[in-house]
Amino acid sequence: MDPKLGRVMLKEWVAIESDSVQPMPHFRQELFRMMAVAVDMLQRLGAHVASVDMGSQQLPDGQSLPIPPVILAELGNDPTKATVCFYGHLDVQPADRADGWLTDPYMLTEVDGKLYGRGATDNKGPVLAWINAVSAFRALEQDLPVNIKFIIEGMEEAGSVALEELMEKEKDRFFSGVDYIVISDNLWISQRKPAITYGTRGNSYFTVEVKCRDQDFHSGTFGGILHESMADLVALLGSLVDSSGHILVPGIYDEVAPVTEEEINTYKAIDLDLEEYRNSSQVAKFLFDTKEEILMHLWRYPSLSIHGIEGAFDEPGAKTVIPGRVIGKFSIRLVPHMNVSMVEKQVTRHLEDVFSKRNSSNKMVVSMALGLHPWIANINNTQYIAAKRAIRTVFGTDPDMIRDGSTIPIAKMFQEIVHKSVVMIPLGAVDDGEHSQNEKINRWNYIEGTKVFAAFFFEMAQLH
Amino acid sequence: MDPKLGRVMLKEWVAIESDSVQPMPHFRQELFRMMAVAVDMLQRLGAHVASVDMGSQQLPDGQSLPIPPVILAELGNDPTKATVCFYGHLDVQPADRADGWLTDPYMLTEVDGKLYGRGATDNKGPVLAWINAVSAFRALEQDLPVNIKFIIEGMEEAGSVALEELMEKEKDRFFSGVDYIVISDNLWISQRKPAITYGTRGNSYFTVEVKCRDQDFHSGTFGGILHESMADLVALLGSLVDSSGHILVPGIYDEVAPVTEEEINTYKAIDLDLEEYRNSSQVAKFLFDTKEEILMHLWRYPSLSIHGIEGAFDEPGAKTVIPGRVIGKFSIRLVPHMNVSMVEKQVTRHLEDVFSKRNSSNKMVVSMALGLHPWIANINNTQYIAAKRAIRTVFGTDPDMIRDGSTIPIAKMFQEIVHKSVVMIPLGAVDDGEHSQNEKINRWNYIEGTKVFAAFFFEMAQLH
Repeated sequence: MDPKLGRVMLKEWVAIESDSVQPMPHFRQELFRMMAVAVDMLQRLGAHVASVDMGSQQLPDGQSLPIPPVILAELGNDPTKATVCFYGHLDVQPADRADGWLTDPYMLTEVDGKLYGRGATDNKGPVLAWINAVSAFRALEQDLPVNIKFIIEGMEEAGSVALEELMEKEKDRFFSGVDYIVISDNLWISQRKPAITYGTRGNSYFTVEVKCRDQDFHSGTFGGILHESMADLVALLGSLVDSSGHILVPGIYDEVAPVTEEEINTYKAIDLDLEEYRNSSQVAKFLFDTKEEILMHLWRYPSLSIHGIEGAFDEPGAKTVIPGRVIGKFSIRLVPHMNVSMVEKQVTRHLEDVFSKRNSSNKMVVSMALGLHPWIANINNTQYIAAKRAIRTVFGTDPDMIRDGSTIPIAKMFQEIVHKSVVMIPLGAVDDGEHSQNEKINRWNYIEGTKVFAAFFFEMAQLH
Repeated sequence: MDPKLGRVMLKEWVAIESDSVQPMPHFRQELFRMMAVAVDMLQRLGAHVASVDMGSQQLPDGQSLPIPPVILAELGNDPTKATVCFYGHLDVQPADRADGWLTDPYMLTEVDGKLYGRGATDNKGPVLAWINAVSAFRALEQDLPVNIKFIIEGMEEAGSVALEELMEKEKDRFFSGVDYIVISDNLWISQRKPAITYGTRGNSYFTVEVKCRDQDFHSGTFGGILHESMADLVALLGSLVDSSGHILVPGIYDEVAPVTEEEINTYKAIDLDLEEYRNSSQVAKFLFDTKEEILMHLWRYPSLSIHGIEGAFDEPGAKTVIPGRVIGKFSIRLVPHMNVSMVEKQVTRHLEDVFSKRNSSNKMVVSMALGLHPWIANINNTQYIAAKRAIRTVFGTDPDMIRDGSTIPIAKMFQEIVHKSVVMIPLGAVDDGEHSQNEKINRWNYIEGTKVFAAFFFEMAQLH
């Protein structure tokens, strides 16, 4: 395929203001237009395309907005070939020139080999790279080595509204023939070295409420005779993690997968300039000194963060209030093979234990507000081997085998609902700035990424 | 004096919307009108009155508002008599019928012997009671047993703007002949039993900032490798006070005055129904079980309250943020003979100590935002004996000898600048609701309070 054509298409797609976050009708219309443009392109490739009506969403303010359709497309159904399903999204985060964009965010602009524009790397560029790879076979009048399916949504940045229900409905229809799933919605951890992502952490988000009474007190007229709810809460939150980042909840590490020799080797192989990483993070010192420890504590060990307190005095200035009812918030990033409901039990038991030792007359309530499972794939699965080979062919190097410390529910959703192996093949570089101002994808990444996908088709065909 | 006339005057004064808190021109005009009405009344009593121009105040929004004048008035200057100076204020807290007032807050309304209206007890009623007592002598054509001075301001509810500077300027002029100072700006701790207040706690307000960097982090991409500022802060705040309310800062209790036998007896004599107090406070259980312990921990022991945290996640919902920079706020109510700057040193040293043990790479800064001294008077001073005798004469009972757990800077200001003994003789009952909706003064308290002041003049003359 002509790389110039790929750039023209990316320019057209970036020009569509398919912002799914801001609820204005203009953006919603643009979202629908975006999906229609994609449908048209896939049809011109010869795909069988269904545009699934997703109904509408109710916003907290009562407003009702139509949800853009999800595209389910199929290209080829040769039962002797592997069927690879690609997930992508065509909606984008909000972007406003006034926020600090140096160029119009909806006008793809090339500067020094970098293609700036909202959605360039997240996720329009990678979706187009996949389409480019397919159309290259078409242009060369070659048979596709694999059957291809697409699931493309327009609500990812808004929480993939209603997508899970659709997957459930389609698991024995659209997804029945699918062998492998590919997602390309994250980044390398390097500027130059490609990567394959095989895991993400889960998350269990807790609230712990301590209540003396509903109203606040004045610290002059009540200070000294109360079990103060803030003193209780601070003690509870202070019992969760020590100053070395070690979580103090009994049993919490019991189910964490042991580190294997093979795993250590994948960490050693990763290119990471720790000093540059520390500087770009603006952090004086990390908890650990080696690349391997840093990455393992971001990816394969749980972490506990205290986010804040609701109901206490949180403004500038000096208010002499004794808060009557406060809610502490913290979360634990989960890793294989931690179990969400076991973690819920362990945390609750631990907090109840700490609280009971205080002999406080206040009431404590612990709740888990959110429980998302971690995801991990077997890196010896066929599509991992195929992806590695494809990357070696295109880039001449082995990829970094990486995980993501945050939670990307989509991979786990595919694994749990569709029961297929998922691989994430990011195309963008670590400095692409997804979600922030001046988002870009490097011209080089976009073109070489297209080649990786094409090579991946060949490798899949060979290995399947 | 005719009690009916006293009620008429209180009605006129309450009708003036002398709100010093809300910056609207209407209220400021009412404040000036209030002071002019008071000047007029004092002049008609024969007082020599100066209305001191206080300039203007600059609000945070840039608006400039004129400060109502402070009234300095003198009645009699017989060098053989004692000179008693009465401090009061004629400004009020905001009041809006819509906030839950059952009657118009600016229309004094009698229901079952209770006179409802904003300022009825805080502080227009007590100021008028003093004036009524003086005018009773005038009406009976009797000589006043003491020389009387008045200092009456209109900005107390807004922090007594510029009053301290005026005191400094007048300490060798207006205040030079003053022997005793009387304030009547607080409440009894009973509904029926009168009280004399001889002390208030001070306050030292601290902020402790912990900073990793200015921006927040995402807990997915950074959780596990950072010295998190919230974990540091929670540990710092958790090191301050134990679950029994005991302050853990080393040395903090060193200068607290030892409890004397005489003091214990004053506590024993106080009427306080603990069960009723607990119920009306809506608290399940206090830290202490006896009246004496409760009152001592409110009045004569220091207390530490944690107010909240600025910079962390404080809203409803679940945000997975690692705050980059957080500021904890707490304060210690100070009692005799604690020293503000010693407390500042002890707290700072303690927090530095706790922080250094954590080996955190974050930066910590401790500041004392506010340091207000405690105030205590010698209850064997002349005016305390006179006030006790006056109360015994009018009410047939000894007063509760009480303190106030909160900080009333004015008493300490008089003590430190003017160097005179201060007594607080509250007139209102514990349920008067100063600062809240449906503020009232009981008709009985208002009339008997006037009598107490008149009797106090006689007793002072006798004892001086």
